Amino acid sequence: MTLLSDIGEKEAVRRILAKIDGRSPVGPGDDAAAVEVGGRYIVASTDVVTRSKHLPQLMSDRDMGWMAAAVNYSDIAAMGAEPLGLLLAFALPPDSSFESLEKMMEGAQACSRSVGAEVIGGDTKESDVLSITGTALGAVDKDRMLLRKGAHKGDLLAVTGTIGLAAAGYRAMEAGMDCPKALEALLRPVPRIAEGMILSSSRAVTSCMDITDGLAYSVHQLSQASGVHFEVDWNAIPVEAEVFDISRRIDADVQDLVLYYGGDYQLLFTFKAAEIGNLVSLLGSKFTVIGRAASSNNVLIKCGQIVPLEDRGYEHFKAIL
Amino acid sequence: MTLLSDIGEKEAVRRILAKIDGRSPVGPGDDAAAVEVGGRYIVASTDVVTRSKHLPQLMSDRDMGWMAAAVNYSDIAAMGAEPLGLLLAFALPPDSSFESLEKMMEGAQACSRSVGAEVIGGDTKESDVLSITGTALGAVDKDRMLLRKGAHKGDLLAVTGTIGLAAAGYRAMEAGMDCPKALEALLRPVPRIAEGMILSSSRAVTSCMDITDGLAYSVHQLSQASGVHFEVDWNAIPVEAEVFDISRRIDADVQDLVLYYGGDYQLLFTFKAAEIGNLVSLLGSKFTVIGRAASSNNVLIKCGQIVPLEDRGYEHFKAIL
Repeated sequence: MTLLSDIGEKEAVRRILAKIDGRSPVGPGDDAAAVEVGGRYIVASTDVVTRSKHLPQLMSDRDMGWMAAAVNYSDIAAMGAEPLGLLLAFALPPDSSFESLEKMMEGAQACSRSVGAEVIGGDTKESDVLSITGTALGAVDKDRMLLRKGAHKGDLLAVTGTIGLAAAGYRAMEAGMDCPKALEALLRPVPRIAEGMILSSSRAVTSCMDITDGLAYSVHQLSQASGVHFEVDWNAIPVEAEVFDISRRIDADVQDLVLYYGGDYQLLFTFKAAEIGNLVSLLGSKFTVIGRAASSNNVLIKCGQIVPLEDRGYEHFKAIL
Repeated sequence: MTLLSDIGEKEAVRRILAKIDGRSPVGPGDDAAAVEVGGRYIVASTDVVTRSKHLPQLMSDRDMGWMAAAVNYSDIAAMGAEPLGLLLAFALPPDSSFESLEKMMEGAQACSRSVGAEVIGGDTKESDVLSITGTALGAVDKDRMLLRKGAHKGDLLAVTGTIGLAAAGYRAMEAGMDCPKALEALLRPVPRIAEGMILSSSRAVTSCMDITDGLAYSVHQLSQASGVHFEVDWNAIPVEAEVFDISRRIDADVQDLVLYYGGDYQLLFTFKAAEIGNLVSLLGSKFTVIGRAASSNNVLIKCGQIVPLEDRGYEHFKAIL
């Protein structure tokens, strides 16, 4: 018998996905599944959130609903799709209050509306432990869908937004510090739907995913899906001043927070180098080039030194966080 | 504070769904949600199954996977849609075995293939309690979607298949009896996709839903959605010999098993009386007329007597079963 705690969530998912046969237009393990309907792809992502393991106790009911929506819309964003709506399946202890369910629902609805969609259906069932499974649906033109595979040598590697603020928020919260901006990033991540749709329409993007489990882990995943390797320039990674400030105050390693934590839900993508002007005109300062597909290993360039980029990140069954 | 155990699952869902605004082409509380894409409706249903509360301990991992698929495809069937695929979100204790996850996945995939679809994606997360949330997707032409509302006075009321075998299987299992056919009906219900698609294409059907929580409860739900009432003819309800046999051996009331349990996942629908020849030619013996929209209350006609059809069924938070 193989215990899930021995192999970890990611390996379990990988082995299970290998059993799915290949009729899908999206390879197993991409951010969302896709099926063709009327000349477009319907993309769909499902994700369970539980308070006990994945969410800090500080998280309100409303935040938990927001999170169940945001993590799934983030996967829809990673495919370059427009969101169609969200389904919510609540597993609830019988001594839960209706008001608590109502707040969770409000949070999910608020997140849905922030991306121009809404909660379209759901289910509740009794369970000993609270969990919310969100399923987000989206649609994208067949030739515009963004996948994890497709990066080529010479492509530039980029991220939307900034990296590490959610991790800093997590650590600040643990340390009992009052850092509202970092806490906001942790508890109410913003799905990058608008950016994903722009990337999709640009025709410049060669691969894309969302950063759920940390930048380093995501770089390795893009690398594996596309069969290329990346040089990441540490100094180019956009990191907010709060991250440096918090890490100083709690004596944490900024590099650890930025590379090996997760929760930012930004998009990580590659694009043809010649298209940089096109992307700047479309996205302005909403993205930053952090590296390129070039080397024979995934590496980090820091202060002129080349060091390996470790292949680790937030892992649920193996609980690094 | 209102406890969910006070108001029950159905009332909680009703109150929550009332908060969803009305942009959806499907009213709140129908079997599945729908969004328009490229001139068709994408329908989607999500359902949580947990072993502790909803599934008998006898159920194997493979059965549990089948169930997580079947209950959702059944909702797709109720909309008259063709299935597109299934997403699975597993919440698993860390001491679960990978082999157990694999068997659940196999069961879901077997059910998917039985309806011409497949598992297209999924997620696993750690939790103290095992649960599987399935989300099934389907597609149906805009003018062919079946809803719970639409029945008119004079329409005939019908079911696919037979009623009560799953309930008999449940009671037989509790009593330690060996009744393979009834147990099969309980543990591996067959989503009525083919029948739903035929009903949808017939253009004769005025309302439709699947029977999850018992025939009586479903009749009341159709009644409420359509604003009509039904006379149900007890003698017309198709009940297999095994149900009578099991109820005799365990001294159970057949009427209780047939009306107030659930788990059959057959379709309950209404159609224009003049179309009966059309439906017989399309469905043959796969459906049975059990009543009509006529009276001013939902009633049961039994041995010439008219008695009220009670509005009760399987209720999760209030646990009647």
